[in-house]
Amino acid sequence: MTDKPCVRTTESGQELHYFSRDQLLKAWADTKSLKVLADGCRLNALTAIQAAGSGHIGTSFSSLDIMVAARHFLDQDDFLTGASSHVFFSSKGHDAPAYYATMHLCGELGDDDLFTLRRLGGLPGHPETITPGVPTNTGSLGMGISKAKGFIKAQRLKNPDSREPVVVVLGDGELNEGQIWESMPGAVRDGFHELIAIVDANHIQSDTWTDQTLPMGDMRSRVEGAGWSYLECEGNDPDAVTDALEKAIAIPTPTLIYARTTKGYGVPWMEAFPEDGEYYKFHSGALAPEVYQEAAAVLVARWSGEPVHTGHGALPPERPEFDAHTPRARADSMLTLWEKMLCDVMAKDSTVIALDGDLSYDTGTHLARHLFPERYIQAGIAEQDMVSMAGTLALSGYLPIVHSFATFLTMRGTEQIFNNATEYTRVVYFGFLAGLVPSAPGFSHQAVTDVGIMSSLPGMRVFEPSCEAELAWAIGQALQHEGPSYLRMGGLAPLPFATNPVGGLLERRSGSQVAMVASGPLLAHQALEASEILGERGIDAAVFTLPEITGSLEASDVLALQDFGLVAVLENHNPTVAKHALLTDALPGLSVIRIGLDGVPANGQPVEVLAHHHLDAASIADTVESARSGFDSEGTSL
Amino acid sequence: MTDKPCVRTTESGQELHYFSRDQLLKAWADTKSLKVLADGCRLNALTAIQAAGSGHIGTSFSSLDIMVAARHFLDQDDFLTGASSHVFFSSKGHDAPAYYATMHLCGELGDDDLFTLRRLGGLPGHPETITPGVPTNTGSLGMGISKAKGFIKAQRLKNPDSREPVVVVLGDGELNEGQIWESMPGAVRDGFHELIAIVDANHIQSDTWTDQTLPMGDMRSRVEGAGWSYLECEGNDPDAVTDALEKAIAIPTPTLIYARTTKGYGVPWMEAFPEDGEYYKFHSGALAPEVYQEAAAVLVARWSGEPVHTGHGALPPERPEFDAHTPRARADSMLTLWEKMLCDVMAKDSTVIALDGDLSYDTGTHLARHLFPERYIQAGIAEQDMVSMAGTLALSGYLPIVHSFATFLTMRGTEQIFNNATEYTRVVYFGFLAGLVPSAPGFSHQAVTDVGIMSSLPGMRVFEPSCEAELAWAIGQALQHEGPSYLRMGGLAPLPFATNPVGGLLERRSGSQVAMVASGPLLAHQALEASEILGERGIDAAVFTLPEITGSLEASDVLALQDFGLVAVLENHNPTVAKHALLTDALPGLSVIRIGLDGVPANGQPVEVLAHHHLDAASIADTVESARSGFDSEGTSL
Repeated sequence: MTDKPCVRTTESGQELHYFSRDQLLKAWADTKSLKVLADGCRLNALTAIQAAGSGHIGTSFSSLDIMVAARHFLDQDDFLTGASSHVFFSSKGHDAPAYYATMHLCGELGDDDLFTLRRLGGLPGHPETITPGVPTNTGSLGMGISKAKGFIKAQRLKNPDSREPVVVVLGDGELNEGQIWESMPGAVRDGFHELIAIVDANHIQSDTWTDQTLPMGDMRSRVEGAGWSYLECEGNDPDAVTDALEKAIAIPTPTLIYARTTKGYGVPWMEAFPEDGEYYKFHSGALAPEVYQEAAAVLVARWSGEPVHTGHGALPPERPEFDAHTPRARADSMLTLWEKMLCDVMAKDSTVIALDGDLSYDTGTHLARHLFPERYIQAGIAEQDMVSMAGTLALSGYLPIVHSFATFLTMRGTEQIFNNATEYTRVVYFGFLAGLVPSAPGFSHQAVTDVGIMSSLPGMRVFEPSCEAELAWAIGQALQHEGPSYLRMGGLAPLPFATNPVGGLLERRSGSQVAMVASGPLLAHQALEASEILGERGIDAAVFTLPEITGSLEASDVLALQDFGLVAVLENHNPTVAKHALLTDALPGLSVIRIGLDGVPANGQPVEVLAHHHLDAASIADTVESARSGFDSEGTSL
Repeated sequence: MTDKPCVRTTESGQELHYFSRDQLLKAWADTKSLKVLADGCRLNALTAIQAAGSGHIGTSFSSLDIMVAARHFLDQDDFLTGASSHVFFSSKGHDAPAYYATMHLCGELGDDDLFTLRRLGGLPGHPETITPGVPTNTGSLGMGISKAKGFIKAQRLKNPDSREPVVVVLGDGELNEGQIWESMPGAVRDGFHELIAIVDANHIQSDTWTDQTLPMGDMRSRVEGAGWSYLECEGNDPDAVTDALEKAIAIPTPTLIYARTTKGYGVPWMEAFPEDGEYYKFHSGALAPEVYQEAAAVLVARWSGEPVHTGHGALPPERPEFDAHTPRARADSMLTLWEKMLCDVMAKDSTVIALDGDLSYDTGTHLARHLFPERYIQAGIAEQDMVSMAGTLALSGYLPIVHSFATFLTMRGTEQIFNNATEYTRVVYFGFLAGLVPSAPGFSHQAVTDVGIMSSLPGMRVFEPSCEAELAWAIGQALQHEGPSYLRMGGLAPLPFATNPVGGLLERRSGSQVAMVASGPLLAHQALEASEILGERGIDAAVFTLPEITGSLEASDVLALQDFGLVAVLENHNPTVAKHALLTDALPGLSVIRIGLDGVPANGQPVEVLAHHHLDAASIADTVESARSGFDSEGTSL
């Protein structure tokens, strides 16, 4: 393994290292070592993430020995031929870079593909079937065993004698989800012995240690109690994983293999995380360029056979300057506004309780939980449980604020949110990553259905603020509303602080001919930019933001819009009854057009997907100009 | 206990028997026997169901000893004073008649209240907080432990030293739900030792034996593995239940008590169900009058101390003429149409697979599963698992048709349905009990949000057929659609078979001045009746049905409507983007009004709730007439 890795230089001049498929095949021919292959894939996964600008390093590194061993187990000597007939997938999905690196190794992806991660038309941030060879869309946690059962039922319908193994990788954090436990008994009843679930048990979930988040109890007892067999192995030893898989397939029950791994395995300073660490730094996100080079150097050294102390019992990290207590850095956003505001809200009102679904750093509860530990509830990755707890807290006189990503909160806990709504209690739901952007993780994290879903639920007010003042107004409304509220928290930097009174339409740019109405920073920014483009074309366009999506329009807002011949409503979500219908109903004499999303949101970099959905400033300007062609310059319909 | 029960005669002349609260109090003073109290409550629960015309007898009877024992355990000598300070609720909720009978016993309800079950303004079909003393809304399965945790957290926030027990009753069928297992670990982590979940383990779920539906494995191992303590007891022996509760509260962990009960306990021929029985007859529904009298006589005999052989090891049933293999009778409905049509669909297309969530008799899979056992999947009460299995079956070339009640399917499996939709596969979802009616079970079973939710999901076509021809057309469309479809199956008898071509608007009654457009039999019937009323008032109203709620209107349909001055769109669901917006957009020159639901659906008898929501024929006629006042007799806007 004296091969040096290949190098590609990015547009920004960064040198990225990878092992070509030919190098990997040669390594296999030379060594027949799965471990060597896994190490090679580790560099490729790291580099794919670096090229993408985001992705999950820690779980990709912990899972790679499992991935490589599983592929070898399933297809044996044919595993590098690119023609697997077996079903193998990752349920957690955020180990996609590892999954893709393994596909590349096995001949299902080419060298170039590694550099398309999280790009429009490239490899999605979480696995999707649009990539040939990916069996199913994953990334919404907890669905893996159910999906495996569907595949097995299909195999058996096609060939009743089929007992071809189906292997699914789970995360240990993912075991929080009820669907995992819901899906186990049916596999026993139906004799699906060919089902093997292997847990990448790296002991760290999104923020911190699994045992500090939601300890899952005695795994063996829970799994065997459900009628499955339970095995354990060292998950960063491909040979140990292979042994476990071979044992599992010989057992006449479904089997769960609990494979003990190390998050960030392969780079000692990524593996190091103190017992009292609050935020594991390598869960998500690409590295700074110089840090990437150091990590790549370590992985290349491993590949070359140099001793690198790693894994269980490894030496102390070689980069102690990484202070694991320092949260990951990030730009100003609605999130960074909220994490401070939540502290204020909880300080002012001692009945407010913050609930969090293992995303304290990503949904803004991490500051408040230190200040008000008694009023912070870590629910784990267990949205249904979290929402139902919030319901009875509300019935008991408390004011729960429930936090998660918008897709998970509004779609995993839907019946629970409805149930709470039928009790006419005050519960506030905060959904982050709402809308098209961030678009790199893929549809499982892009909430485009949340407005339709939440606005269908009884009494629900839906807010989408664009700036600090609108956020403050919206939370103020939610804290007073005699019923449930949903705040959808969108991507990109907030608009400048509004000094005008807020609540209804807020003029962000004056204009006379066309009005654009947006909610949330993403499309408000695009609208402002589009208005500049339109101005250059002689069309004087105003831009308004509207912080509440549901409800009826105030008379003053109708007045503000009624002199515009054309109102363009920008919607960062799929069609619903919400804002477009609201404006159409309120403005019967006007021409109201909708510019928004529909269908499955595209995955890729923000600039790419905005253009793809015709929601970038240039496309919006074109659409507005085109719609204007039916009107004269005074805004009167021709 | 020589007291004879009190008697009330219903409007239809039926004599209903019950024990007054005074009688129950006297019985307690005389006997200090919880068993006697439970038997008295059993008659009251039966009678409440009989007065209501529907309700769940089997589970009410099995749970009553637990209910009475739990109330006594919580409040000891004060348990009959009507002033409990403890949280006690049933998570399964369809034992509401037993829960209310116990509330009546304990002084929280009066004698008259027993006769208000499932009436507007009376006792809801499943417990709701609108009844003072009911802690939380239940009936959506699986939420009980989560809700109990919220109550305990609130108790401890109010008083950090509080260790007051919170007791929740679960069903053994309910244990299928993933949320049960999701909610257990957090109670251990947080030291919620005062949490006691007691399972009414009657071994029969909606259709048949739990072990023939979805065997849950080794309960002790699963529960103890989650860190809870596990106890078993005889659940139809109140003293045994009391012992178990006292043990549980002394244990420094949360405790699950698995209380073995008998479904229909107390009436031997309700208890009898053969090992190979397919449909337990006393799961839901009131009794024929003469059968009620026999059951009441048995319960009165027990109360009077006469020997009645019952419970485990009871004598053979005394009414062998009840053939447990005969399904419960029911009227013609969209459901009875579908159960036959599903057989045809599966006979014609060998890729079609029927999935069922423990509702084979209520969602129409029970005939097909005998004809095509290999292509029938009993998922149990596990909607998330069912939907995800359907997804990978579709990816494998099969055509899954997923069945459940509309609320459970569209709100419990939402993220799973979305995930499937992002794979662009063909999956057909059938949601029964869609809309306002049947209204007696309460909101947990009344799907009013399903259209908003499902029409928000990518690529979803939403159908609501009104007759056999429209159902056949809709399923034909769904089987061809390159994506997911949702068929919402509403209550009441279908319209007569349409002989015209179907797909778009179908004229059900001609008219010249006003058009009413409905989807589904409930509002189509009301519209037809309303048109008669309007005719008497000199307004010539047409009625159309529209079997698809999503999509765009065909040109011929626009033509059919454009001569009407007023179009009234009837919506058996909460506001959405769907039909109303569709028609408004398609008919910009016309006045389109919406007559539909909003908020939480009322609970009660169909006639009552239709009037309450102004959706009965008379209210619809009034609304249309009132809207017409803005138009002249030719339909021209004034």
